[in-house]
Amino acid sequence: MTMQSEFDLIRAYFTGLGATRADVALDIGDDCALLRPPAGHELAVSIDTLVADVHFFADCDPLALGYKALAVNLSDLAACGATPAWVTLALTVPQFDADWLRNFARGFNDLAVEHGVRLIGGDTTRGPLTITVQAHGFVPIGQGLRRSGAKPGDLIVVSGSLGGAGLALRQLKLKRADPSAPSPLPALLNRLERPIPRLALGQLLRGQASAAIDLSDGLAADVGHLLTASHCGAMIELAQLPLDQPVAAVIAATNEWELAVASGDDYELCFTLPLERLNQLTQYANMAACPLTVIGYVERQPGIRWHQPNGQSWQPERSGYDHFGNEA
Amino acid sequence: MTMQSEFDLIRAYFTGLGATRADVALDIGDDCALLRPPAGHELAVSIDTLVADVHFFADCDPLALGYKALAVNLSDLAACGATPAWVTLALTVPQFDADWLRNFARGFNDLAVEHGVRLIGGDTTRGPLTITVQAHGFVPIGQGLRRSGAKPGDLIVVSGSLGGAGLALRQLKLKRADPSAPSPLPALLNRLERPIPRLALGQLLRGQASAAIDLSDGLAADVGHLLTASHCGAMIELAQLPLDQPVAAVIAATNEWELAVASGDDYELCFTLPLERLNQLTQYANMAACPLTVIGYVERQPGIRWHQPNGQSWQPERSGYDHFGNEA
Repeated sequence: MTMQSEFDLIRAYFTGLGATRADVALDIGDDCALLRPPAGHELAVSIDTLVADVHFFADCDPLALGYKALAVNLSDLAACGATPAWVTLALTVPQFDADWLRNFARGFNDLAVEHGVRLIGGDTTRGPLTITVQAHGFVPIGQGLRRSGAKPGDLIVVSGSLGGAGLALRQLKLKRADPSAPSPLPALLNRLERPIPRLALGQLLRGQASAAIDLSDGLAADVGHLLTASHCGAMIELAQLPLDQPVAAVIAATNEWELAVASGDDYELCFTLPLERLNQLTQYANMAACPLTVIGYVERQPGIRWHQPNGQSWQPERSGYDHFGNEA
Repeated sequence: MTMQSEFDLIRAYFTGLGATRADVALDIGDDCALLRPPAGHELAVSIDTLVADVHFFADCDPLALGYKALAVNLSDLAACGATPAWVTLALTVPQFDADWLRNFARGFNDLAVEHGVRLIGGDTTRGPLTITVQAHGFVPIGQGLRRSGAKPGDLIVVSGSLGGAGLALRQLKLKRADPSAPSPLPALLNRLERPIPRLALGQLLRGQASAAIDLSDGLAADVGHLLTASHCGAMIELAQLPLDQPVAAVIAATNEWELAVASGDDYELCFTLPLERLNQLTQYANMAACPLTVIGYVERQPGIRWHQPNGQSWQPERSGYDHFGNEA
C-alpha cells in the first residue's frame, strides 16, 4: 500500500462521522469547514487533549478511546449548558494501523451520532499517540453556565456517582503490574472508559444553577475551581457523596476519601443551586435521567471544609490529577 | 515550586493572549469559552497539529514556534477568505519550562495581536511536545473560498514565492549533521520559521477566485487537491514559478524542481481565477501587499502537465510531504 493510499484510507475513516446537520455548509476535507451558527445563541467552545500513557494506556481498546475522546469534550459543553453541534479531531498516531483507526473512528462516531454531533474538521499526523478534540455547541445568549456565580447558601449538587473511574484505573494498573490481580468488573470499567456526558442535565440547568463545572480532575480540584471563580468557599459532607458501590467498599475499609474526591475522570457535573430551587432537584434528575445528590453548601469563607461521617474535619492529601506531577 | 503553582504560571502565560474582542462573552479559563459570531456570516474553522521532530525540531526557538503554530492555522483561514477572530491552543509539553513557555506564548501573542485574534481556549498537558491550534474566522454567508470551483481555462495563481522554507529546512538538516556546514541566511530561515498568512489576499479573493487552497504540503500536492476537488487538471509552466532567489540558484544548478513544488511549508495561497479577471491581479497584489504570479491554467483533462523551461514535460518524483512516509 502506498503512503498516498494510507492517507486516502484515513480520510475515508474520518469523513462523514457523526450526524448529518443542515448547519454545515462545507464539511470536513477543505482548508476550513464552513458552519452556520443559529441566531440568538452564543457559541460554546472547548478543547481537550488526551496523551497516551498520561491520560490512557497506549494499548487500550481504540473503540473505547474514540468514544472517550469525544465524551470528555462533550462533558465540557454539558458544564456550560450547551447543545452540542460540531467537533474537530486532531489525531497523532505513531504508525498507520487500519484496524486501530477504524475502531477509533467507530467509537467516536457512535457517541457523535447519539448526540447529533458532526465531525467537521481534522488533522492526522504521525508522532506519539495524542488526541485533541474540540467541541462546539450553542447556548441562548447570556444563558451559558459558568464557574462563577455561586453564592453563599447555595446547595452543592453532583450528578451520578464518584470514584468509579479512579478505582477502575487503580485496578487496571495493579493488573498490569501483576497479571494475577483481578480485572475491574465491567460496570466499574465502564465508569472509566465510557463516561456519560451529562448534556441533558446541563441544558436543564440553564437559568437554574448559579454555577457549574464538570468533574475531570476530581471533585476537590474542580469544586475548588468553581469556588475560586465564585469567590466563595464550601462545606462538603463526605457521608453525602454518591459513590459507586465498590468505591464505597474501599473507603469503608480504608477511609481513603481521596479515591472519591481526587481520582479524576468522573465526568459528572457539579453545580450550585439556590436553596429555593431544592424542590426542583427531583424533577431535574427525572428529566435528565441521572441521580442528583446534594453534598454540601456554599459558604462565604474561602476554602473547603470537608466533614467526615464521624463529624471530624478532613483534608485531602492531594487535590486532583496533575499532569506534571503524577504518572498515569 | 509546587505543581499547583506551575499550573498557575501556565495559566498566567496563556490568559489574555492576543487582541481584546467584544465578541468574546466568556474568555479562556472556564469549561467553555462563549462567543458571539456575527449575523450574516459563516463560521470558518480549521485545526492543525505540529509534532516535534516531525514538523519542527524539538529544540527550535520557542518564540518562532509559537508564531508558526498560529501562522499555519491562519493560513487555512486565508485560503477560505475568512477574517480571523478566535483561536484555541492544545499544548502538550514534556516538562514545565518557564522560559520556553513564556517565549512560546510571546511568539503566539505577537501574531495574534497583529491579526486581531483572541486565544479563547486551551488545554495544557504533559507528554511528547505537540501543538494543536484551531482557528475560527468569519466569511459572509456563501462567500467562503473552496477547493472546488475551478473551471477549465481559469488561470492558476500563487502568492509570494516557493521553495524557500524547503531549502532552509534542508540547510538546517545539513547543519545538524555537519556543524561546519553553513547556516541558512536569515531571510531564507524566515521563510521556514515565519510564514506570512495571506489573510488580506484571501479576503480580497472572495467572490473573485473560483477556487483556493493554501500551500502547506507543496504546490504539487496541494494544487492536486484543488484540481481533484474541482474535477479538473492543469498545465503548469515551471519557468513561471516564483522562486526565492537561493532556490532558483539550486534549481538552475540541479534541475531539482521538487525543491519548489514538493518541499512544503510555503504557506502561500494558490488560487484559480477566471481569465476575465486577469487585469485585476495587479490590483489584488497591491492591495494585499504580496506578489501574485500566474503559473499555468486549468484544463479539462485530469492530472498536472508540468512544462520545463526547455519545453519538455516533467513529473515530480514525490508530490509532497507525507507524515507517514518521510522523516523530518
